[in-house]
Amino acid sequence: MNFCSHCGNPVTSRIPDGDSRPRYICDHCGTIHYQNPRVVTGCLVTHGERVLLARRAINPRRGYWTLPAGFLENGETAAAGAARETLEEAGAEVGELELYTVFSLPHINQIYTFFRARLTGDRYSAGAESLDVQLVDEAGIPWDELAFPVITETLKCFFSDRAEGNFRTRSFDIIRPPPRTL
Amino acid sequence: MNFCSHCGNPVTSRIPDGDSRPRYICDHCGTIHYQNPRVVTGCLVTHGERVLLARRAINPRRGYWTLPAGFLENGETAAAGAARETLEEAGAEVGELELYTVFSLPHINQIYTFFRARLTGDRYSAGAESLDVQLVDEAGIPWDELAFPVITETLKCFFSDRAEGNFRTRSFDIIRPPPRTL
Repeated sequence: MNFCSHCGNPVTSRIPDGDSRPRYICDHCGTIHYQNPRVVTGCLVTHGERVLLARRAINPRRGYWTLPAGFLENGETAAAGAARETLEEAGAEVGELELYTVFSLPHINQIYTFFRARLTGDRYSAGAESLDVQLVDEAGIPWDELAFPVITETLKCFFSDRAEGNFRTRSFDIIRPPPRTL
Repeated sequence: MNFCSHCGNPVTSRIPDGDSRPRYICDHCGTIHYQNPRVVTGCLVTHGERVLLARRAINPRRGYWTLPAGFLENGETAAAGAARETLEEAGAEVGELELYTVFSLPHINQIYTFFRARLTGDRYSAGAESLDVQLVDEAGIPWDELAFPVITETLKCFFSDRAEGNFRTRSFDIIRPPPRTL
């Protein structure tokens, strides 16, 4: 951030009075520009014994398999955002959403929420950000070709909970060193 | 948003190619400025049979009782942010955090996460944003003087689950009409 988005003058980075962290501050109009983590929301869609996976058409991790998910928008509930992303990326309409996993990824300033959901109807198809969409059973999960740790962890929980007949909402922290810059 | 925070030129609001929502776009440097919900994170702190409430020293809802909570910062897990806010607002150190309630408040573009936590040690005191901090038992909860619906709902769940001896993570949507402007 270099300029104030309110008045267009240059900003400086310093700790405001009564705060403990540096913020971008506009000394012209006084606006303090806070920067906060973003929420990514998605669905683990089931249809009978199978779950819906999408193969990523975009980077990062193009070609790897994922659960449909994307950034929560203003004005949306986390569940509504998860259903929207599922429709956009996997062409699938879903219902009966239940919060299932919540992840903190502080190294990339993200919170993930995944909902268990049921496919309503039997249509699904690759959206613009997907190369392919498939319903796969547990034996067909491409564990070595999953896109992100949050996907692997959510699927592991799901098959474990399903075997026990008891689904419960779970929360995880995924801690990584910050990305190195040269 | 009026100006590009990257290059300082004026932005316009329109739907980018391949998108479905209007965004602030800088036609000079090409930056698309996404705006997303923020996460508020806090703790329901227990000490024996009692829970820790803080009386707000700031608006909105100055004078009303709340659970310590505030905006999640970049680089933080939701649990670490909840513990930090509890220390800042209620002078209380906590441990054994477990995700308990998750709320979507789309009318104000917020996601709330509350963690059950235990007071470690027995110190607590009002921080700069609190008028008072008290450990209260169930009979002492000021139900008519709670600051926000997310506080009321989290406390109701807690006493109900405690009576049943079974805590589980829950998710809620709080739907309100958007604020009216004159």
